[in-house]
Amino acid sequence: MSDASDPFPSPTPEDDGAFGPEFLQDLTRLFLWRRDVRHFLPDPIDETALETLFDLACLAPSVGNSQPWRFVRVEDPERRAQIRANFQRSNEQAAQSYDAARRADYLKLKLQGLDQAPVHLAVFCEKDPPQGHGLGRLTMPETLYYSAVTAIHSLWLAARARNIGMGWVSILEPETLNPLLDVPDDWHFIAYLCLGYPARMDARPELERLGWQNRDALCRQVLRR
Amino acid sequence: MSDASDPFPSPTPEDDGAFGPEFLQDLTRLFLWRRDVRHFLPDPIDETALETLFDLACLAPSVGNSQPWRFVRVEDPERRAQIRANFQRSNEQAAQSYDAARRADYLKLKLQGLDQAPVHLAVFCEKDPPQGHGLGRLTMPETLYYSAVTAIHSLWLAARARNIGMGWVSILEPETLNPLLDVPDDWHFIAYLCLGYPARMDARPELERLGWQNRDALCRQVLRR
Repeated sequence: MSDASDPFPSPTPEDDGAFGPEFLQDLTRLFLWRRDVRHFLPDPIDETALETLFDLACLAPSVGNSQPWRFVRVEDPERRAQIRANFQRSNEQAAQSYDAARRADYLKLKLQGLDQAPVHLAVFCEKDPPQGHGLGRLTMPETLYYSAVTAIHSLWLAARARNIGMGWVSILEPETLNPLLDVPDDWHFIAYLCLGYPARMDARPELERLGWQNRDALCRQVLRR
Repeated sequence: MSDASDPFPSPTPEDDGAFGPEFLQDLTRLFLWRRDVRHFLPDPIDETALETLFDLACLAPSVGNSQPWRFVRVEDPERRAQIRANFQRSNEQAAQSYDAARRADYLKLKLQGLDQAPVHLAVFCEKDPPQGHGLGRLTMPETLYYSAVTAIHSLWLAARARNIGMGWVSILEPETLNPLLDVPDDWHFIAYLCLGYPARMDARPELERLGWQNRDALCRQVLRR
């Protein structure tokens, strides 16, 4: 940990790895206040803060320490427009999957902040990374994808703690993203993320406030076997 | 948020959703000190603390607020023994996949704490939950699995903040878990987790300390498109 050439953050020598009661309270608050943000202010995100978010995301767990996450910042207006159109097509397809009453409710929802968010981030997972030498994923190769997801979740929490909002756009045709963003075929598309300062803060999920889906105590049950 | 019948935690009315610099420092420390734990003390985990971990896990993001995670505590010694044997078979298969030199290194690693961990937790994902009404997952149904993963990662972080260690066992035959644990066929197995107090604390991943895989600056790169 004391290797000065190591570019990664590490604890100070005095750090004993213990956490106090105030931190526990604030960590609970962080989980409560993290939202999928779809309403952004146009203000740019400070680049130093963004770099910190990437550093923290890369501290996420990964199967065999494979670190398979691959981040792509999407800045080109033409590429952004194609992703916007991709969402539009996928969203219309999704709307058609509902009966008329629910479709009307669906179409009232704003499910992405692609037009306002200053930072767009596509996250891929390398399907067979050299890192980790395959450890832990022979019978469950999907754990590579799950590792990329924990990096996204770390980034999400670290962003919210800095009042940077994040929204995860999944209403996309995933197979179109590799050629669109000119990344290798053996990268698996995981998520398209919008980041920016949120236009409002709320501790309640927007889908709950708007009556689409509440939290459900059934999902909190723990079976015993 | 003020509905007294809501069983879920919520912020106090005075809570403005802001986080201070000390919290940011400690959140970074939490990411640095979270480890995949394979060496546990036999001491039981306080049940109240465990319940808190489940509450916090259920605050994770989920596609369409579908909350598809399904938790199963595995307590029966016979079931635990079958899972231990399942790991053993899968691990031998994994060892055979390496050449002789790397196999020798592989076999020196301790990749699970199944024998010592007081709490075993299997996590599944319901494949087509009614919650969320399908929102956000028509083109990317795998986002349901990713939602379960964010719940696991929340639980992991909340546990580490309480000095409770967690290890994720992925060296298993996933298709055997549903019948073994008597859960519905339409639950998709995501992870088998060991929880308990760690026998040691370290800010360096065990796979890095033992020379299997360091953190790699290549994985930290952010492409621009």
